Amino acid sequence: MSELESVLAHIDSHVEDALERLFEVLRIKSISTDPAFADQCRACAEWHAKDLASIGFKASARDTPGHPIVVGHDRSGNGHSVLFYGHYDVQPVDPLELWDHDPFAPFLETRADGSRAIRARGASDDKGQVMTFIEACRAWKAVTGKLPIPVSILLEGEEESGGVNLPPFLKANAGELRADVGLICDTSMWDPKTPAITTMLRGLCGEEIVVTGPDRDLHSGFYGSAAVNPNHVLARILADLRDADGRVTIPGFYDGVPELPEVLREQWEKLHFDPKAFLGAVGLSVPAGERGRTALEMIWSRPTCEVNGMGGGYQGAGFKTVIPSRASAKVSFRLVFDQDPHAIRAAFRDFVRARVPADCKVEFFEHGAGRAIRFPIDAPAFERTRQALTVEWGREAAYIGGGGSIPVTHELKSALGMDVILAGFALDDDRIHSPNEKYDLVSFHRGMRSWARILHSLASS
Amino acid sequence: MSELESVLAHIDSHVEDALERLFEVLRIKSISTDPAFADQCRACAEWHAKDLASIGFKASARDTPGHPIVVGHDRSGNGHSVLFYGHYDVQPVDPLELWDHDPFAPFLETRADGSRAIRARGASDDKGQVMTFIEACRAWKAVTGKLPIPVSILLEGEEESGGVNLPPFLKANAGELRADVGLICDTSMWDPKTPAITTMLRGLCGEEIVVTGPDRDLHSGFYGSAAVNPNHVLARILADLRDADGRVTIPGFYDGVPELPEVLREQWEKLHFDPKAFLGAVGLSVPAGERGRTALEMIWSRPTCEVNGMGGGYQGAGFKTVIPSRASAKVSFRLVFDQDPHAIRAAFRDFVRARVPADCKVEFFEHGAGRAIRFPIDAPAFERTRQALTVEWGREAAYIGGGGSIPVTHELKSALGMDVILAGFALDDDRIHSPNEKYDLVSFHRGMRSWARILHSLASS
Repeated sequence: MSELESVLAHIDSHVEDALERLFEVLRIKSISTDPAFADQCRACAEWHAKDLASIGFKASARDTPGHPIVVGHDRSGNGHSVLFYGHYDVQPVDPLELWDHDPFAPFLETRADGSRAIRARGASDDKGQVMTFIEACRAWKAVTGKLPIPVSILLEGEEESGGVNLPPFLKANAGELRADVGLICDTSMWDPKTPAITTMLRGLCGEEIVVTGPDRDLHSGFYGSAAVNPNHVLARILADLRDADGRVTIPGFYDGVPELPEVLREQWEKLHFDPKAFLGAVGLSVPAGERGRTALEMIWSRPTCEVNGMGGGYQGAGFKTVIPSRASAKVSFRLVFDQDPHAIRAAFRDFVRARVPADCKVEFFEHGAGRAIRFPIDAPAFERTRQALTVEWGREAAYIGGGGSIPVTHELKSALGMDVILAGFALDDDRIHSPNEKYDLVSFHRGMRSWARILHSLASS
Repeated sequence: MSELESVLAHIDSHVEDALERLFEVLRIKSISTDPAFADQCRACAEWHAKDLASIGFKASARDTPGHPIVVGHDRSGNGHSVLFYGHYDVQPVDPLELWDHDPFAPFLETRADGSRAIRARGASDDKGQVMTFIEACRAWKAVTGKLPIPVSILLEGEEESGGVNLPPFLKANAGELRADVGLICDTSMWDPKTPAITTMLRGLCGEEIVVTGPDRDLHSGFYGSAAVNPNHVLARILADLRDADGRVTIPGFYDGVPELPEVLREQWEKLHFDPKAFLGAVGLSVPAGERGRTALEMIWSRPTCEVNGMGGGYQGAGFKTVIPSRASAKVSFRLVFDQDPHAIRAAFRDFVRARVPADCKVEFFEHGAGRAIRFPIDAPAFERTRQALTVEWGREAAYIGGGGSIPVTHELKSALGMDVILAGFALDDDRIHSPNEKYDLVSFHRGMRSWARILHSLASS
């Protein structure tokens, strides 16, 4: 039995132990965006530092102005080095009433077809995925006493909340963190049977706006129509953001957005993406974005603007005839190719200001910015990883695009000069950021096996 | 000393006692729109029934499918009868953090200029105003052993929440409740020195709409622009409700809305309404409604549409890149002259449906409907009331319009055939429906004296 085969066998015979460790992490309420959970974020970072130390990593939870960043190193291997990035924070859980269970009481669910899934907030995004890599390292250490290559691990605690403290941390610790290639496990398979490496990711620009009109809530009977209503002002701004063809109307928004290169278009066509199934899975049938674009373009290669939250006035039970003093919205832009998030933020603010009447004021709050990113799929490490995935899953692994933003990919590139291999085992039905998030046991198990293989294959680079 | 003078003197010497009773009512959290406060609504109704019985009314809290309705009769007087209507329920208190004190812990505040105000939710709307009338009756009974005329009192518990149970109650008890004229104390003075009778009130049509798109909350990275976003759909609908000139765009909305009759226009001009002061008091300066209309027209004689509440997606601290499954809004229309609330509701629903894409569904929830109303100011009871107010306040009382809706005025007219005299002592800065509601002690004290005079003057009809 080869070393690799022994490691895979070790993983197979220790799935229960790996699950128990994952459940421990999942029980920690590391919601980074809500200050009320700061202690839980720290607890999660410390859990990871201790766990990494237990398998021989030199690891610690390092302070930042926000939540800690976990860094661990294991130099027991030789050759080309990797830096694995993951995040230990999770999205908020509201609306809590839509969960079928406690989001922080993980359990293994057996479905009607006999398949099993890990159920909890963070099961897929990103705690379950992070542990696939750590468990692969643990197995290599247990079986061979070392790792195939030098491995550094960096776990962030603010991926879901803007991540403003990571870039300065990377710059300040560039010498320590730099490796030959980055690895990230925060993406999805192409489909439940086809592994994938994501080589194109959209960027993100998040903004919160607060429109204030009257200096107090007013009775709409006394003031209705005479007093400006911030709900109306905000609705007008949000409605104006897209035209009848679904295009974003902010001047200059499409600067740096080319048509999809022919080579990518051809590659994507081979994937036989089924928009009906994609939308059908969430109860929809009609692509809602730019007219004349395919659904795959919309989510991979076209920018967009989404109102992620809005609110103003009375939202409780019953009715209250109020003109609210203020109304607010959280708006995010997904960016592609060479769009500049800072230019778009500035253009958005101008766009909003132009629509705020003299009697209202508007405030802006920044929530993260990251450019879109593309990686060179002709680099050897990419192809070795793809081969390892292909062998593990028995199906040709695909190079794909991704609609979500992982700003750190850009930061790793700019601060450390590293390309990043994005290989993940999430599935489209994992309900990440939604109630009832899950991670298939198959994703977890074969994810661990995949990383064990990838570490082995990268050793021969 | 005449009987009336004795009654007024009695009121003057018992203000403290009257305040203590009012504070008792103000401590009861009778928020009718929120089912969590149903017990408190009942408690408030029962408090009133007991209080009325204590001064010789035959009174009880009567069950309805909603909150109880209090009815009391005192037939000790002779001549033309009156039915006094008030409501014992109050608006919700959120946002609670904007209150300077507990909304249900009433107290008397002394201001820098030495004037005093009663502070609590409902102090003005409508508990304080209701008690001005009841205290006037109490004083008449205490001094003379009877009332000048036959008086019935009806106190509703659902005025702030649609009031659907009142019309059938009026119809079912028409014989018992019918009187020669109705009296309501739920309106404002023209200014702090000028008493007023409101003879024109806008109607109301309230609607709640819920737009549902995807069957769960989605990650905007994966689904952004491909999946329809209910926030965008709702913002578009709400923005479309008014055009660039501030006119409501729902087809047929202005049916039954004439230009202001010349006689009224002349009368209103004499009031020297100051739009700058009106808007300036709430931190505004520009009338926001229909272009070319005066602010007084906007609030008294023009219809409007206000988004009283809207919400969708993540509204907590931080940021969440979600496409929400649903978004909702509460929209109300203030109606004038002959606008039909039911026709407007139907037209609004058509308007909304026409803007909901195929992939979304929309649900509608009805929240009240009442036509606008005008009363004949040439009827003797109106003029007698105006004279009584003029004497009490030492300033000519004005006939004015009102922006708010008091649907019961229409119901009293249609179910009982009664005209209603709307005389109230609220002030524009009472912050009703807002945090820190108050009622001036002068309003309370002279309000009691005003009703004592009005009861006396109506006896000579």
